[in-house]
Amino acid sequence: MPRPKDSDGPRAAMIASAISLIRRRGVAAVSFADVLAASGAPRGSVYHHFPRGRTQLITEATEVASARITAGLGRALDTPETSAALRALAHTLARGLDRGDYTVGCPIAAAALSNEPDAVAAAGSAFDTWRELIAGKLIADGAYPERAASVAVLIVSALEGALIVARTERSPAALDTVVAELGALCRSALDAGRSDVPITPPAAS
Amino acid sequence: MPRPKDSDGPRAAMIASAISLIRRRGVAAVSFADVLAASGAPRGSVYHHFPRGRTQLITEATEVASARITAGLGRALDTPETSAALRALAHTLARGLDRGDYTVGCPIAAAALSNEPDAVAAAGSAFDTWRELIAGKLIADGAYPERAASVAVLIVSALEGALIVARTERSPAALDTVVAELGALCRSALDAGRSDVPITPPAAS
Repeated sequence: MPRPKDSDGPRAAMIASAISLIRRRGVAAVSFADVLAASGAPRGSVYHHFPRGRTQLITEATEVASARITAGLGRALDTPETSAALRALAHTLARGLDRGDYTVGCPIAAAALSNEPDAVAAAGSAFDTWRELIAGKLIADGAYPERAASVAVLIVSALEGALIVARTERSPAALDTVVAELGALCRSALDAGRSDVPITPPAAS
Repeated sequence: MPRPKDSDGPRAAMIASAISLIRRRGVAAVSFADVLAASGAPRGSVYHHFPRGRTQLITEATEVASARITAGLGRALDTPETSAALRALAHTLARGLDRGDYTVGCPIAAAALSNEPDAVAAAGSAFDTWRELIAGKLIADGAYPERAASVAVLIVSALEGALIVARTERSPAALDTVVAELGALCRSALDAGRSDVPITPPAAS
C-alpha cells in the first residue's frame, strides 16, 4: 500500500496506514504494531500522538475516512438528478474495488462491524450523515421528506451490501445492478412527491 | 457464547465456535487457538479434523453458516407474498441482532470481507444461492425473470447493508425501513410482470 507523504507527519501517516489496514483486515486484526510497521512512524511517538491508545487511533481513522467519503458523496450528489449521482458514486466505488484488487472494503463498514464502541459510533455518524445528504437531495428534487428519508436508508444499506457482494464476485456487477434499481426507485419517489399536482396518464409508447 | 452439545463431537463444536467468533470479530481476528479455547476441543484433534488447517476450518464454518441461513431463507420465502417473506426475514435478522446485543454480524458478510480466498468463494456461493431463491420466488409470483434477478441482487445487498447500519444504531429500524421499501419494489416488479395483460387504471381512492 502507498505510504502517505512524509510532510503529513507521523500522526497523519499512522491514520492513513490504519485506514488502509482496517479496509483489508477489519478492525480486530489491526494492532498498533501493524500500524507502526506500515506507516514507518517511530514507536516512541504512539502515545504522544494517541494518548488514549489504539482505540483513539481506530476511532480517528474512522472519522478521517468518513470525512473523505462524505466529501466524495457530496461531490457525486452535485448533479441535477439523484439517479445520475448514484451512477457516479457506483463508478467511484467500483474503481476503488478494482484498484484494491477486490480485497479492500469500506472502512466505515469495517468500523461498524468492530467491537470498539467509539469506532462503531463514528461509523453510525457517517451513515447518518450520508442518509441526510441523500435524503436532502431527494427532497430538493421533489420527494416527500418521509419517503426521502426511507429511500436514503435503502440507498446507504444497498450500496454497503453491494460492495460486499461485489468483493466475492471480483466484479462491479452487483453495484451496477443495485444502482440501476435504486435510480428507478428514486424516480418513482420523485413522481410520488409530484403527484399532488393533477396526474396526466403516461403517454402510450 | 453457548457451547454446542458435546454429542456433536469436537469437530462440530469447533465449527460452531468458529462461526460465533467470526460473527463477532471478523475472520482475520480468529485463530485456531481461539476456536480451541471457545469450543473446548482438545488441541491434538485440530489437524485430525482439519488437515488443511485454519483455512479449512474457516471455509467449512462459512459453508455451515451458509446452509443454515439458506434453510431459514427458504422457510421465510414459503409464504404467498414476497413482501411478507421479507418482513419475516427481517424479523428473524432483528431477533439475531438483539440476542447478540448488536455485536454479532452476518457470518457470510464476515467471510466475504476476509482475505481467505476459499471463504470468500463460499460467501459468494451463499449470495448466489440466496439471489436465486429470491428471484425464483419473484418469478413464481409473476415477475419477469430479468427484473426478478435484478431485484434479488438489490434485496440481498440491502439486507446485508441494513444489518451493518442496524448494528451502529443498536436498533432494527434500518432493517424495517429497508424491508418496507423492498416490499413496495417487489410489488411494482410483479405489477410490471403482469402488465402484458390489459392495463386497467388504478382505482381513485
